[in-house]
Amino acid sequence: MRVNAYAAPAEGLPLVPTTVERRPVGPTDVLVAVEYSGICHSDLHTVRGEWGPRPYPLVPGHEIVGTVAEVGARVTAHRVGDRVGVGCLVNSCGQCAPCAGGDQQYCTAGPVFTYGSTDVDGSTTQGGYATHLVVDAGFVLSVPAGLDPAAAAPLLCAGITTYAPLRRWGAGPGRRVAVVGLGGLGHLAVKIAHALGAEVTALSRSPKKEEDARRLGADHFSATADPATFSTLAGRFDLLLNTVSADLDINAHLGLLTLDGVLANVGAAPGPLLVDGHRLGSGRRVLTGSMIGGVAETREMLEFCAAHGITADIELIPAASINTAYERVLAADVRHRFVIDAATFV
Amino acid sequence: MRVNAYAAPAEGLPLVPTTVERRPVGPTDVLVAVEYSGICHSDLHTVRGEWGPRPYPLVPGHEIVGTVAEVGARVTAHRVGDRVGVGCLVNSCGQCAPCAGGDQQYCTAGPVFTYGSTDVDGSTTQGGYATHLVVDAGFVLSVPAGLDPAAAAPLLCAGITTYAPLRRWGAGPGRRVAVVGLGGLGHLAVKIAHALGAEVTALSRSPKKEEDARRLGADHFSATADPATFSTLAGRFDLLLNTVSADLDINAHLGLLTLDGVLANVGAAPGPLLVDGHRLGSGRRVLTGSMIGGVAETREMLEFCAAHGITADIELIPAASINTAYERVLAADVRHRFVIDAATFV
Repeated sequence: MRVNAYAAPAEGLPLVPTTVERRPVGPTDVLVAVEYSGICHSDLHTVRGEWGPRPYPLVPGHEIVGTVAEVGARVTAHRVGDRVGVGCLVNSCGQCAPCAGGDQQYCTAGPVFTYGSTDVDGSTTQGGYATHLVVDAGFVLSVPAGLDPAAAAPLLCAGITTYAPLRRWGAGPGRRVAVVGLGGLGHLAVKIAHALGAEVTALSRSPKKEEDARRLGADHFSATADPATFSTLAGRFDLLLNTVSADLDINAHLGLLTLDGVLANVGAAPGPLLVDGHRLGSGRRVLTGSMIGGVAETREMLEFCAAHGITADIELIPAASINTAYERVLAADVRHRFVIDAATFV
Repeated sequence: MRVNAYAAPAEGLPLVPTTVERRPVGPTDVLVAVEYSGICHSDLHTVRGEWGPRPYPLVPGHEIVGTVAEVGARVTAHRVGDRVGVGCLVNSCGQCAPCAGGDQQYCTAGPVFTYGSTDVDGSTTQGGYATHLVVDAGFVLSVPAGLDPAAAAPLLCAGITTYAPLRRWGAGPGRRVAVVGLGGLGHLAVKIAHALGAEVTALSRSPKKEEDARRLGADHFSATADPATFSTLAGRFDLLLNTVSADLDINAHLGLLTLDGVLANVGAAPGPLLVDGHRLGSGRRVLTGSMIGGVAETREMLEFCAAHGITADIELIPAASINTAYERVLAADVRHRFVIDAATFV
């Protein structure tokens, strides 16, 4: 089955309309008719070659919401017409310890990512900038009624990427949480941390996003371009979630943590983090990272977001605007996520 | 009261015999007649100016075992003649959240360290390379009978420095723990991790310390100078304790951790740790540090060591050999800790 899509023909080139082959719907597969596909910063990193070589042409997209168009004979969890989502994962070995524990994203055999990965049948996965895709039912998630389907698409990557470390490291009542950055990830992190009951501080370079941050649910706001922020807020936070994909002064940010505080990094800075070991030891501080989430955790996140009315703030665009949108993502000129209307993959 | 001691007269100079003043024994003080004083790598870092400027002359020493020579009127926990220890801390504010929680080493007002700190009376603290010192009773620890007093001295710093993160991060039965380095800290870490019931792997640059490591209690040994070690042991350890005070390839070592594994750093490398954020995120790994331990935790450690017959492997030296010992510490030529016989501070 050939379906309309947008692909990068080679590393660093603009995306162009094309068609891609989807495998026949196997007994455990679901054919998803894509409605909406979010543009994640990862898509740009990948097609710009910043995360290493990939097979081309490459169809990005791993924030996918659509409806079930067909199910394989053995699929019971989804029915034709159901609204579903697909995130960054479309398969994993299912046998290793992480898979057994529900952490498919850490599959020791290597998870099958939604695009640019080698699928179980040996083909290269192609992502959600397309009208349809075929996915193993175990990686298809029900999208709860009540979530706007376009605005829910970014939950499948940006949502779970921030929800997972916020939950793991105890964001909740009585805890002071800082979110660094207010992009696609950061704006959802503020909403989720607020809904979890934490006291939320948004940290952004300049003061210009303060109003936006407070609207998203931040109790406090500070500009990190002001050095006084790092002395005023020293030792203040139990948890700091860094969502910024640029190099930042990691030691200054570690200094904002209280005793036993945790800095969870989900940003993808190009350079190494230059960590002062003493800064860790002198407060028994924790530096950690996190990568998306497992299937059950993503399901939990979608239900949490539905219960709290959380979706992304989006700008809906036609496929023809993808390359312009990429330029605007690079310029941080989006509040807060582009989502492609899949009806325009023509 | 003036007492015999060895002091660095200025930064970078060899230690020389001298005398220092000890304050009168106040109502909550204990006068300790020093028997043994360990040489910690921190002593060298400090007097060589590697940890910033300090007041001079400076008497190092924070691995102290002795007997109680006098107690203040309000001291009930210690009696004249008791065998006691003093570690890196001699006071703290007692009021802040860390102090209230028993984490005096993280006192937000700044703990009073055993030497080179400003004491509560405004004087500069002088350490354990001396015949006597006066310490607030709250920071004097009972040394359990059955621990050799000379070999117990290093427990007061090296012991608690390794015990605290091993306990905090769950070293115990069913857990795979790696100890990097087999110096003063590392050799005690191997003994303690083994006594806690963990499966212990010692990691040292060259293969030459294997026999020693196994004697200390290591179940396995690998040489980190062999690059194959990092592929063979990839993803193996739940906890890795780095005790090395030299720059090391932190990402290679993070790669040895399993999902959710923890690298606890107690080494004092001169440079920053160049951490690949992806290496953290791709295994939800934790990088953390730890600094000695609180009073109750140190007491617990001493009791644990007494119950398991753990003391340091030491080379007992006279005070006149301190400067030679410092050279040998720098050359890593000691198995595994120098302890000064305080009877030779004359």
